[in-house]
This record gives sequence, structure tokens and C-alpha cells, in this order.
Amino acid sequence: MSKKPFDILIRGGTVGTAADVFEADIAVRDGRIVAIGHDLGEAAQELDATGQLVLPGGVDTHAHIEQLSANGLMSADDWESGTAAAAFGGTTSVIAFAAQHKGWNLAKVVEDYSGLAERGAIVDYAFHLIVSDPTPETLEKDLPDLLSRGYGSIKLFTTYDLLQVGDAQILDILRIARRHGASVCFHAENHGMIAWETQRLLSEGLTAPRHHADSHPRAAEVEAIERVIRMSELVDQPVVIFHVSTREGAEAVRTARARGVRVSAETCPHYLLLTRDELERPGLEGGKWMCSPPLRLAGDHEALWRALESRDIQLVTSDHAAYRFDETAKLRHGPSSTFKQIANGMPGIEVRLPLLFDAMVSSGRFGIERFVEATATAPARLFGLHPRKGTIAIGADADLVLWDPERKVTLGAAMLHDRTGYTPYEGREVTGWPQTVMRRGQVVVKDGALAAAPGSGRFVPLVRTPERTPTL
Amino acid sequence: MSKKPFDILIRGGTVGTAADVFEADIAVRDGRIVAIGHDLGEAAQELDATGQLVLPGGVDTHAHIEQLSANGLMSADDWESGTAAAAFGGTTSVIAFAAQHKGWNLAKVVEDYSGLAERGAIVDYAFHLIVSDPTPETLEKDLPDLLSRGYGSIKLFTTYDLLQVGDAQILDILRIARRHGASVCFHAENHGMIAWETQRLLSEGLTAPRHHADSHPRAAEVEAIERVIRMSELVDQPVVIFHVSTREGAEAVRTARARGVRVSAETCPHYLLLTRDELERPGLEGGKWMCSPPLRLAGDHEALWRALESRDIQLVTSDHAAYRFDETAKLRHGPSSTFKQIANGMPGIEVRLPLLFDAMVSSGRFGIERFVEATATAPARLFGLHPRKGTIAIGADADLVLWDPERKVTLGAAMLHDRTGYTPYEGREVTGWPQTVMRRGQVVVKDGALAAAPGSGRFVPLVRTPERTPTL
Amino acid sequence: MSKKPFDILIRGGTVGTAADVFEADIAVRDGRIVAIGHDLGEAAQELDATGQLVLPGGVDTHAHIEQLSANGLMSADDWESGTAAAAFGGTTSVIAFAAQHKGWNLAKVVEDYSGLAERGAIVDYAFHLIVSDPTPETLEKDLPDLLSRGYGSIKLFTTYDLLQVGDAQILDILRIARRHGASVCFHAENHGMIAWETQRLLSEGLTAPRHHADSHPRAAEVEAIERVIRMSELVDQPVVIFHVSTREGAEAVRTARARGVRVSAETCPHYLLLTRDELERPGLEGGKWMCSPPLRLAGDHEALWRALESRDIQLVTSDHAAYRFDETAKLRHGPSSTFKQIANGMPGIEVRLPLLFDAMVSSGRFGIERFVEATATAPARLFGLHPRKGTIAIGADADLVLWDPERKVTLGAAMLHDRTGYTPYEGREVTGWPQTVMRRGQVVVKDGALAAAPGSGRFVPLVRTPERTPTL
Amino acid sequence: MSKKPFDILIRGGTVGTAADVFEADIAVRDGRIVAIGHDLGEAAQELDATGQLVLPGGVDTHAHIEQLSANGLMSADDWESGTAAAAFGGTTSVIAFAAQHKGWNLAKVVEDYSGLAERGAIVDYAFHLIVSDPTPETLEKDLPDLLSRGYGSIKLFTTYDLLQVGDAQILDILRIARRHGASVCFHAENHGMIAWETQRLLSEGLTAPRHHADSHPRAAEVEAIERVIRMSELVDQPVVIFHVSTREGAEAVRTARARGVRVSAETCPHYLLLTRDELERPGLEGGKWMCSPPLRLAGDHEALWRALESRDIQLVTSDHAAYRFDETAKLRHGPSSTFKQIANGMPGIEVRLPLLFDAMVSSGRFGIERFVEATATAPARLFGLHPRKGTIAIGADADLVLWDPERKVTLGAAMLHDRTGYTPYEGREVTGWPQTVMRRGQVVVKDGALAAAPGSGRFVPLVRTPERTPTL
Repeated sequence: MSKKPFDILIRGGTVGTAADVFEADIAVRDGRIVAIGHDLGEAAQELDATGQLVLPGGVDTHAHIEQLSANGLMSADDWESGTAAAAFGGTTSVIAFAAQHKGWNLAKVVEDYSGLAERGAIVDYAFHLIVSDPTPETLEKDLPDLLSRGYGSIKLFTTYDLLQVGDAQILDILRIARRHGASVCFHAENHGMIAWETQRLLSEGLTAPRHHADSHPRAAEVEAIERVIRMSELVDQPVVIFHVSTREGAEAVRTARARGVRVSAETCPHYLLLTRDELERPGLEGGKWMCSPPLRLAGDHEALWRALESRDIQLVTSDHAAYRFDETAKLRHGPSSTFKQIANGMPGIEVRLPLLFDAMVSSGRFGIERFVEATATAPARLFGLHPRKGTIAIGADADLVLWDPERKVTLGAAMLHDRTGYTPYEGREVTGWPQTVMRRGQVVVKDGALAAAPGSGRFVPLVRTPERTPTL
Repeated sequence: MSKKPFDILIRGGTVGTAADVFEADIAVRDGRIVAIGHDLGEAAQELDATGQLVLPGGVDTHAHIEQLSANGLMSADDWESGTAAAAFGGTTSVIAFAAQHKGWNLAKVVEDYSGLAERGAIVDYAFHLIVSDPTPETLEKDLPDLLSRGYGSIKLFTTYDLLQVGDAQILDILRIARRHGASVCFHAENHGMIAWETQRLLSEGLTAPRHHADSHPRAAEVEAIERVIRMSELVDQPVVIFHVSTREGAEAVRTARARGVRVSAETCPHYLLLTRDELERPGLEGGKWMCSPPLRLAGDHEALWRALESRDIQLVTSDHAAYRFDETAKLRHGPSSTFKQIANGMPGIEVRLPLLFDAMVSSGRFGIERFVEATATAPARLFGLHPRKGTIAIGADADLVLWDPERKVTLGAAMLHDRTGYTPYEGREVTGWPQTVMRRGQVVVKDGALAAAPGSGRFVPLVRTPERTPTL
Repeated sequence: MSKKPFDILIRGGTVGTAADVFEADIAVRDGRIVAIGHDLGEAAQELDATGQLVLPGGVDTHAHIEQLSANGLMSADDWESGTAAAAFGGTTSVIAFAAQHKGWNLAKVVEDYSGLAERGAIVDYAFHLIVSDPTPETLEKDLPDLLSRGYGSIKLFTTYDLLQVGDAQILDILRIARRHGASVCFHAENHGMIAWETQRLLSEGLTAPRHHADSHPRAAEVEAIERVIRMSELVDQPVVIFHVSTREGAEAVRTARARGVRVSAETCPHYLLLTRDELERPGLEGGKWMCSPPLRLAGDHEALWRALESRDIQLVTSDHAAYRFDETAKLRHGPSSTFKQIANGMPGIEVRLPLLFDAMVSSGRFGIERFVEATATAPARLFGLHPRKGTIAIGADADLVLWDPERKVTLGAAMLHDRTGYTPYEGREVTGWPQTVMRRGQVVVKDGALAAAPGSGRFVPLVRTPERTPTL
Repeated sequence: MSKKPFDILIRGGTVGTAADVFEADIAVRDGRIVAIGHDLGEAAQELDATGQLVLPGGVDTHAHIEQLSANGLMSADDWESGTAAAAFGGTTSVIAFAAQHKGWNLAKVVEDYSGLAERGAIVDYAFHLIVSDPTPETLEKDLPDLLSRGYGSIKLFTTYDLLQVGDAQILDILRIARRHGASVCFHAENHGMIAWETQRLLSEGLTAPRHHADSHPRAAEVEAIERVIRMSELVDQPVVIFHVSTREGAEAVRTARARGVRVSAETCPHYLLLTRDELERPGLEGGKWMCSPPLRLAGDHEALWRALESRDIQLVTSDHAAYRFDETAKLRHGPSSTFKQIANGMPGIEVRLPLLFDAMVSSGRFGIERFVEATATAPARLFGLHPRKGTIAIGADADLVLWDPERKVTLGAAMLHDRTGYTPYEGREVTGWPQTVMRRGQVVVKDGALAAAPGSGRFVPLVRTPERTPTL
């Protein structure tokens, strides 16, 4: 029997998964991994991975791309630039947000947003559905319909005037999610505390970017996390807490998990690596580091690393929310903007994996397996992209990164590919870098160049069933 | 030097305070305790307390009296009957509620309610100010003014459509209270959870009284307690959690106190002694035991006793909220009422001390000192009635109870003096009973008869200063 | 290029690892896995795995085999029978105990025990070194030497007259282990409590097997776990807690992990599935279920499952400690034996995987990944057998089990292969069974028959380095 | 009827108890308080307390006086000097230690020690029985006999070579204590950890006093506290933890109390006010601040204050253990002494109340009531001196302190009355000072002079019954 050659063979690398690290070649056919091992046979194309790690492409389950904010500001990155940046950073799947504004039809939102993604996406993608207007039509018709069609993750906000939903509405949505085995994710901060602090600060003339951090007190995070968890228990529906930023928040998650609540949690590189000191810069410059929840204290870093270590936090995502630091975006209200007028959010989709590889693996604190787990496998499992995404296994999409574990790179806006115009990590050196990135067996980044067209990314339905709700 | 005789001398009793139990006579002049000891001298009148305990009159800091509910139902007891019942039960000071409805002027509310109390009260009294409509006028003018004039305690609701205030409003009020050293008390249950469960139950036809308990899930209590505590921390203003009913609620208080939060808590006899099984009676009968939060499980009793033991809960009050079980009150919506239509609340002002003496002291679990502390001294201290009320000390008002520790009494509606027409404790036998009750040196109850006129009770200003905020 | 055929090809199965489940063939050459995938090529031998799971061979890191107890009783199983039973049950690696008695030379102990294993072992093996006599010679010479030569795991007892080591000795050994990156495992029960309760019970004539459970109070476990953890923190050396049996014990581990202590823990099937009710049988019959720590309460089961779920407990091992229930072993002190005279321990090496597959996977509570992780990958990683053992990865030993997930088997002593003569699970039905078992590419069990010779098992050095101490 | 004059009348002061603060005179007859109030009558002697507080005499339940240490060193203070110092500091009752050495007969120990106390004591006293040699004679005969005769408190050590008792022995003693309703107090530190650290430090040449603190690691304290608590639970016998010095230790107590364990705890002024920085002095000077457990970190202070606030710690005692800093005591091993050779302990019996009044009351953090509770009432209640001691109540011994709350005093060895020769608080200024001290109605200190003879102090039996075990 003569064997048909593979499409591609990646030779000589060290393969890393959430469970193992070993030397092996990987053979790809029709965009999928079909063999792993030595001496596999011939291929139409070969990639030499000698001296490199071969890791699953990153899965970034929290990225704002070409998203119109509730107050009318478009994010800096459209699907093309956002997913190009993702690919350059080693991320081959993203979950972005189909965001309902008040009064909008959720089905239409998804339809429109799908159109944008289809045209622009370079990596594969899925959506979280932001529900901000839980009308009967939304709850009884559109949402169940979407949950059944692969749009199986909902995101809710407990804060922001234009996005927040009340506790009773949250309970309604949790109940619907439970019926469909859907994920429900939360931006969990107490709205009243934030509104009250904001009003207090502005009335006292404390308008500088650093006061944004004051306006989102630590108590607001832990309070809302605790509340969301209590609601999760009441309905017996798992929840995901987005961007945990404080020690107390991590503890609240841990406490709940210890009593058996099915709550998962993510944090982001900036909560692990940066502090609110960044906001202390003169003038409005600190506005570049404004995000919500805000950057916290150095002591929170260790608490979050530990929560990651004990898997009380399971995911590290980018929360890429890019706005230019100019009059088109962060400064659109001019040079005398208050913190309330400066758009929140920081870019991060491209640097997520390099920052974490450096902080987790190069530092010696974690093994490669845990890096892969936190940035690819766990996110993919949690939301239902796995087993297609997030791992190196037979039958999985050949989303692979050839990673140079020794390469040292100094981060800077000039070398990055999103459209933000700045990076919060300017000048930081990291060890470890994605050299070649492959999506469904196609090289999309090589030698620093993009090799895939806008629109080549594909929608991946989220597949979770009520019978097998994976809570990590 | 010839010594002027005392007005009254209580001879031969065993005096009990929060700190000590000892044999002594007590001498009273001008309504105050002027001497304690042996061989004190002569008096115009003597009371023989041989074989009896002489305890401070009870202080019930949570009683609804002649209060119009937000949906228009007057409580069964007016000031006369409510405070007569208090007196018969050994309670000589009450704090009732001057309740603002939406649209009402708070100063006017207090003025009107003061009028009612002045005409009817038999025991001394103060008010908590229920703020349900925190308009600028209320917050900036009336409230500060009242707080300065002896009305130094605020009560807020996190639930009930017509009473609840939002988180930002709570923060505003906590800040004002902080400036004035005022108390802020909370009915802490999550409104969204209750509304959602109520809607769910009613829509499923689950309308019987026992479903009232289902409509106030345990999670609603602990969630709101946790939230209120986080707000307390944010503003650095002590809070009081009313009627803790669950193990989880008590734990939330304990956890907060352990990290240094100044939170105090009360529970009530019915949460220590009764369970939701009472609600399982046929027809609407269970409605007699409907209250909010609802009666819970037997396991909660031990948790609450333990919290009392460790002083994580410091007070036991009655939450007297009496409604007749007939067409004038609980059944005003007729024989097919849903639980939502039956007024919540139970009478308890008269039986509070006997029930607790029996359960705490006669049972051998607690000493007399802790009974006095939980039912008189601690409530008086917390709200600023102490040192005039709640203790037996020189200079304190001669509010005294001659308590027969051996007397066995079978509780029943027929023997009680409130106007509810039933008691949740019908047929229960207790050991220990208040025989003679004295208020400011005047016997108000003796040999089962009332000896004081309506209107003889006096307003007692709450005196707390920011410099000496006692948190128990 | 003509490709050399594989030695073996396992075709058509569903491969399960700690990270993934996928359909693939597995190719083996020279005893190792060399390829995984589809269409891999030809092989000298093929196994049809259609309809079967292909899982890593189980790793049982806690098994007493041909071990002489400190009071002179030889275990029922020698290396041949014990590892045959392991193989029949799907387990292809065991860690047994080279046990120093007081006065014995540790190096000699290892040498002698190695000889027994070499002659008898059917599966691969390593040793924990039981140190009971930490003389200077042991601590300064033998132990460091052994730790450097692949005997990199120590087991200590905090109880048993003849085995226990004191706290200062434990600290000495932890320090030595730290220098060598060795594991240190604990039988953690408070000796004083056990001795005191035993004396009390026996003096009261309470001698039946069920009183064995009383003689090992729950407090003894949690106390010793807490103490060992404090010592671990003091020396900054990771520890492993063996056979956690109580809710409190699991909580102690969790609490420590939450504050960053590197403590791992195992439990055993009997603590997850059986209760102390088993000991209530008449006469000495309950002695069959005597083990230490003893079987506990049903409520502990859920606590342990949850700890497994949250990975506060990471391993499930057998603690195989087989003694015949006759005059040669458990009853060697005759029909009037007290519980103190009946040897502790239960067989379990063969049923471990079937019991757990049934309880974890067939029940629907856990995925296959977590079953593999808890029973193979995590044990192998923790002690340094990984990456050779405990996983299905390129380069790993071809220790594989073809597992029939649908096969129902009723457990009974007659069908099992150890020499105990009884099973604690007689009559229990499980779903899922190891059909074919392969060790280093050689079929050792097939169609219910053993196909490997005694002595074919090999020693596997434990490879852990101080730089990469994996704490799960 | 002509009234017999009182022996003494204390006029015009502000009386402070654990429950109340009020203006009143106090009348004394036959050494007891017979009346409190205004206009009480005439007395043979009057004391003017205008402008002063009148507080119960302090109760110091942890003082080493004329005690021979197990290694043969006599404490600096005999009964005369030690209790004179107590009296000058406002303390009128002490509990010292009748310490059994190995081989000694406990009854004889008590007899001999009683003789010393009778001859020398200036304040009233009781004993804790230190049991270090729990022979059958001790356990079955002497101890029960003593417990029945007013020697109702036992102290056990978990460390010190010559004093420690093992876990099984502790359980034996707890069981005996339970039968007699006795107190059991613990010096709770892990012996193995201390021995191991000491050996390590000395072998590394780290012999300076500051290394004493290293030799008693924080883990040693919390470990032993947790262990003692587990034993307390096992036997269901309350325990008292002496001198909690760490945050973790206080948390262990709190955690246990939260689950219902009857554990009480004390701390000492030096753990609240001093840090281990004191030990950093050059040469052996730091030896003056050596005590066990050692002084800790500033962060522990707040943790201990909070525990006092929440009553998880209830008592503050002196742990007076005075050794001269010269060749007769601390330096008896000469100028090259290692920390192991320098006696542990610090004087504190005289400064305890002034230090605490300053830190609790003058600072504004606590009210007078809590100061009285922590330093007099609670200690007296816990060990059974109450109601005779520790309070101002009718019938109580007239042990009273006229306290000047405004007086500022700079502490120094020259002004103190013990025989240590130094004070750890040299130069510290405190506000508040005991002006006049009265014991059983007799002035023992006035205007800085002693007015009582050695031997005038009396033994006070500890009266606790199993039926009324007060756990604070």
C-alpha cells in the first residue's frame, strides 16, 4: 500500500501540550493534525522546527475587535488588524463580542457582526453575545435560537450605564443558559460603588487618569464577584468571571470553588505584570494604562499568580480593547478630559503569549504544560472550542506555533501590528517568541510577515452540551 | 447628717448585669438608680425581690409599632398596645421606625410619628429613620438635622419595591452617617433574587405560604449582607445587619469582623427557635409564621447560637411586626391569597425576653450576664441609649425587671397583650418570667396588671458621637 | 525511502490522555510510542482497538508488595502476585516501599528489596524509601546517596510505634530532600491521639474491629496533616500527604495550597466509595475492612470527590496492603483478637482503575481526561516517572491499556489475581474494564491471561531535579 | 435605725467596670464592696477620688514569681518583690505557677510553693499547676485531689526539654481536667521545630540573641496551637492558649472558635507593643528582650489588637518572667553566651496596666470597659477568681485602683519595684497611672509608697464547676 504524502510535516521540534512535552514531528493533512511522532513519512511541504517548541496556537477568549462601544466609539482594531496582531502574537483563535446595545435586536447584532468577521478575520473566531437589553424577544426567541446555533456564550455586565443588567435579569439569563448548556461570563464590578466614587472624585476636581483607578475601588470587584457567584449557585448554572484583578477577587472565586460552586475565572497579563503606578504619569499620559477593572497593586500580582498555580484562575486572556491615544479615541474629549471621558482599555492581543511565556516559562515558575493550558487548552475547553482548538492532538485543527524559547525581544509599538499606536509594555524585554504561526495547516505568519488574507479566518461554533459542561 | 430617704428600695434580689451577678438592694431616686448594695438606708417605698433576679429592663431595638407599611397596611399594634405588650414582657425601651414612604418629607414623618408615640407610649422609646426616598432635600437637609437632634439611627432596605434604596444611595447615606456618628441598619436581602423567585413561584402556581420561604432564598440574605459589608468598608462607616437568619449570613458577618470591618448584627427569637416547617400547615394557616427573612432550618439555629456565643451576633431583638390573621390584615386579600398578598411579620415584643431567658439561661447554655448583654446592654450601647438604658448602674434610669427564674409559663395568645390575636409560640412552655417591671422608678407592670398610662413613656435621644462609635 | 515497519500498531481506538480524547492509531517501536495518528504505516503486529479506549497504563504510586511489616508480618502478595494483579487491573507501573526497620541499614534495605523486585516484578516499578531510623549514617550517607541514584522519594510515618519519626527528625529529612529535589510522602496521623484512644478503648473492653475506626479519630488525621504542612513551610520543601480520608483533612490541604504551600495529596478508592459501616459486621469479619486511616463517613466521600475536582487532591492510588483474613495474617492472634492485633490494610491494586473509571467516567461526573490524570499522569509527574510513564506521548514507554468502556463486571475475589483471598468490593458491579494491557510494547495481559514472566518488570529511576519540582 | 458607718468610702470617682462607666462612691466593709452609689452614708475613712477612675484591681493570671526554672535558675522576683511590683502597677491578684519538675511530687510542690507565697505575697494569689511529670501517682491521686481543693488550673508545655508533655499525656490530663471542670493552659510551641532550628543556628555559629527569635519560628506557634485545639476537641475539654504572639496563632484560635471549639487565649503587652527589632542590639544586649515565644513583627501587633477587639483573644497578662541581665541570671554563662544559654523572659507585672491603659484607652481605640474586661474581669472569670475578683460589684473583694487617666509617666527601671534591674520599656511615656491601690479594702499603695506587709496577700481558691465552665 502506497501512502499518500502529508500536506505538511513539521520536523524536529519539541511539542508541548497541556499534558506533555516531547520531541516529535507533526503531520498535517486537510488542515488537521493527522500524525505525531517520528519517521512519519513524506509531505508536500516541510517546516524545520529544530530548536523550537511546537505549541498549540493561542486561544484568546476575550478580545474586543471592531466593536462599537455603547457610547459610540469604535475600537482601533477592525477584524483585519486585530486578528493580524493576534496571529503575529501566536494566537490562532479568538472569541470577540457581538454586542447588543439597548434597543438593538440581538439576532441582527450577530448577523451584522458575523459579516464584519467574515470579511476581515485572519484567525478563527467565535463570539460571546453581550446581552444588554433582555427584552422578552431577546430572552425568549433570539437568545435561545443563537445558543442553539453555536453562539453558546453570553457576556453580561454588572456595571456601565449602557450595558449593565440587573440581578433579576441576570437570573433570567442564567436560567436560559442552563437549559442550553451555555457559558455565561461576567464583567463583575459593582455599579453603584463606581458611580458613587466617580461622582465624588469629579466633584472634588480629581479628574486625572490616576483617579480612574480610585473610581473603581477594589471592593467593587469583589462585591460583584461574590454576588454573581451567589446567583450562579441559586440557578445552578456555571459562570465565568472575567479579568479578576485583585487578591480579594481571586479569594472570592477560590472560596466559592471550595464549596463546590462551578465558577471559572480569567485574568489578563496586565493584572499580572503592571501596577496602577503606571497611571501616575503627568498630564493625560496615564490614560494609556486606563482599563476596567484598573491596574492594581504589586501585592495583587502574587495573589493572581498563586490563583493560577492552584487553578482557581484557569485562563489568561488579553482583554484586548484598543483605543488610540489621540483625538480620535482616548482623547476625543480634548486635552482637558477627565478620566470619565477617556476610553478604557488597552491593547494586548499580540503580546499576551510572549509576556506570559516569559513570565511563566522563561522565569522557571511554571512548566510549558501550564503555559499551554492557561493560554490555549483551558480557554478552548471552557467555551467549547476544544477539541478542535487549543491542543495538539490527532484530529485537531493544525493551529500551531513554532516558538523560539530563547529569542529575546524588546517590545515596542513600532514592531506590533495592531492599530493602537502604543503599547503598555514599551521597552520591556521578553524571552521567547512565536516564529512561525500556522492556522489549519496554513502558515499565516512567517519571518515576521503575514501570509494570510483577511477573511481567511473561519467561524467556529461553540459546542457545549448541558450533559458535559466542563468547568475547569 | 440626716439622709433623705430614697424613693424606692428594691430589697433582697439577685442583681444581674452584663458583667456580674450579685446579691444587693437597689435604691432609686428621681427615676434613677442612686445606690446599689446592702444596708443602703430607708425609702418611701420598698419592693421585696427575695428569690428574684433584678435585671435591667429589656431594650428592644427592632419593633414595628403603629407603622403604616409602604403598601398601606397599619400594624396591629399602636403605641399603646405595642408598648404595653413590651412592658408585660419585661422590655422598657424600644426603638421603633419613623418610616419615610416615597415622596414623603422625612422631617414631617418624624414629627408625625413622634406625636403618635407621645400620646401612646408606655415604655421609653427612640426611632430608627427609614429612608426610602433619598432626595437632595432628605440627604442634605432633613437627615443631617435629625441625626443631630437625637434621631441618630438610620434603617435602609435593600429589598421591597417601595422601600429599597440602590447601592449608590446607600453609599451616600453611609457617608452622611459617618459625619454624624450615626448608626445605619440594614434589612439585607437581595431584591433581584426575591423578585425573580417570587415571579417564578407564582407563575408556577406555587402560592401557598410555605412558598414565601422559597421566594426569599438563603442566597439572597448572604449576598446582601456581603454587599452591605463591602459598602461599609468602602465608606469606613459601621453598619448593623438586622435579623440574620442563616448560617451563611452569620458566617459572612464573622468573616468581615475577622478582617476588621465594624459590622454588628442582630438575630431574633424566631430565627433561633422556629423552623420553616411551621409554614407547612394546611391552607393559609402557615401565613401566621410568614416573616422576612423567612424561618429557616434547624441547622441554622445552632449556627446562630454559636454566633451569639462568639459575639459575631451581638443583639437579639423581637422584630415585632404584628398583623392580625384575619381579613383586616394578613388575609385582607381573601381566602385565595397568594403568599405575595399576605403581610409579612410576626408578633414577638412580649415573649422575646421569656423565650430567650428560657433558651439561654434556664437551659444552662449561657449565664445571666450574657442574657442581659444580648437583650439589654448591647442593644442600648450599639444605638446610643446606654448608659441611660440597658444596664444597672449608678445614674442609669431605674428601668428594672424583677424576674422569677423558676416560674414556668405556657405561652398563649390569650395571656399576651398585643393585638395580633395569635402567637407563633402557642403552647410552648418557658421557665423564667418577668414579675414586676419598673420604668424610671415607676412600677409599670405588677401582678399581671398594667400600672402606667399611655403617654407616660418618653423619647430618649440616641447619643453617639463620631469619636466614640461603639461597635460591639 | 522505505520505511521500517513498526513493532506494533494499535488500530482504531479512542486515545485518552490527561489533556485530550481523540481517535488515533498508536505505533510502537522498541517498547516506546513512536507515532500517533492515522495512516501511520505498517507494523509487525497489529492490535484492533475498535470500540475501545486506549489509555496510558495506570500508575499506582502507593502499593505495599512483599513488604515485611515492622512487627514481622509479610504481606500476602509478593512481587509476582502483586504486580500480576496490578497488570490485570490495567496498572503498569507501581511504586512500592523499601522499608527500613529500626536498626536496619537503609542501603542494604534497598539492595535486598531490589533483589526481590528484580526476580518477581511483572510491571515496572520504583521505590519510596521508608525511613524509620534516621541515624547519622542514614541521613548523611545512605539517604543522600540513594536520592542521587533514582531512589528519589521518601516516606515518613508520624504514627506507629516502630515506624514513626519525630518532628525534628522530619525536619532533618525534609532538608535533605530539599537538597536533592526529592519527594517526601507522609502517613499523617497523630500518634498520641491514636495511642490514647486505643488504650482507652481496649481498657473499656471495646475490642471489635469497628473500634479500630474509633481508635483513629478524625482529629488525628487533620492534626498531623496540618503539622506536616507547617514543617513543609518551615523548610520550604514540598510534601505529599498520603491517603487523605476526611473532609477536614482535605480542607487542611486546600487551606495550605491557598496560601501557597507546595503540598500534594492522594486519596484511595476505599475512602471515596466505602464507609465505616463495613466494620460493623459481626465477630471479626469487619477486620477485612480495617485499614489506616480507617474508612470514614458517607459525607466524607463528597468532600473528597470535590477535592479531586478542584485538584486539591491530585492522585488516587490503591494503598494496596493485602493480608489474608486467616490465621496466617489478619487473624494470626486467633479468634479473640482485639482490633489492635488485626493487621491493617486492604487489597486494591487490581480494582483501583475499574472502580475509579466506573465512579468517575461511567457515572458522567468526570471526563476521561481527569480519570487518566488522577490515576496515571499526575502520579507519574509527581514522583518523577513522567515523561516515561503515565501518558501517551511520543517517546513515552508504550504502557497502554485497551479499555472497554461498556463492559460490565461484577467484582469478586475469585476473579482477582492477588493472594488476599477476599476483596472489600465483593459483588459490586462496575462499568468499564481493562481488556488488554501492554507494558513497554509487550502485551502482558490479554483475554484474561497473563503473558509476561516474573522479573520482566524493570526498575524505573525517579527523576526529579531541584530546579523543576513539579507540585501538582 | 442607726446605720453602722462603712469602713471606707471612696468618694467622687468615676467607676469603670467591664459593662459600665459611671460616677459613684464606693463603700467598703470587712474588705468587701457593700455599696455603690451616691449619698451612701458615713465611713470611718474616706478617700477622695475626684478626677480619678475607680477600677477593679488588675488580675494578672500569668506571672512567674519565685519560681525555680527547670534548669535551676531562680526568678529575680520572690513573692515579696513580685507582688509589690504588681501592687504598684495596679494589679491586686496574680496567678503564679506551682511548677512540678521531673521526679517531683506535685502535692509537695504545691505545699512548698504555698509556703513561699504565704510568707511573701502582698496581693492575693492562686496557682496554675505545671505538670511536667504525669506519673500515675500525679494523674490518679495528686492532681484530682488538688483540682478539688481550689487548685483548679493546670498549665502544660508542649516544648522545653524538661517541661514538655507528649500528646497522649496531654489527652490524659485534659480528660482529668474535664471531670473536675478545671482550666488547662498551654505554652503552645512545637518542640521539634524549635530544637531543630536551635541546633541549625548554633551549628552555623548564629548565637546572638536575635537568633533566639529565629529559633522559635512562627510556624512553631501556630502548629502547636492547632494541635492543642484538636486535642481539646477530641476530649471536649476547653483550653486556654497562653501568650499568642503571631497573626497566624490568633487566626488559628479564631478559626477554632468559629467552629464551636471552647478555646480562650491571652496575649501580653510585649506582643502588642514591641517587635523583634529590639533583639538586634549589639552584643548580648538584645538578651534583655528575649522571651518565648519571641517578639514578632509590627504586622502582628495589629492582628493581635484585632483579635482582642473581636474577643478571639480575651485576656492580656504580663507573663512576668524576670531575670537580671547580669552574671546571676541572663548572663550566668558569661559574655560569650549563646542565645540558648540566656534565660528567656521579661519583667512586666508592674507596667502591664499602664501600658495597656495607654494603648487601649488613652489612644481612643477602646473604651474603659474593654480595658477592664481584658485585664481584670475576663481573666478572673476564666480561671474562677470571679466574682470575688476582677470586678466592682456588691460582695466582691474591695480590690480597687484609683487611676489617674491624665497622668503622664515615663517608664524606667529606676521607678519600678521588681528586682530585674531593667525594663524593656525604658523611656516610653504612657498616659494614665494607678495612684492608689486597695486590696480587700486596705490601701496597699499610696503616693508611691507601699503600705502592706509581705504575707498580707491571701490564697484565693479557683472555683469552677463542670456545670458552669465559662469560656470567654
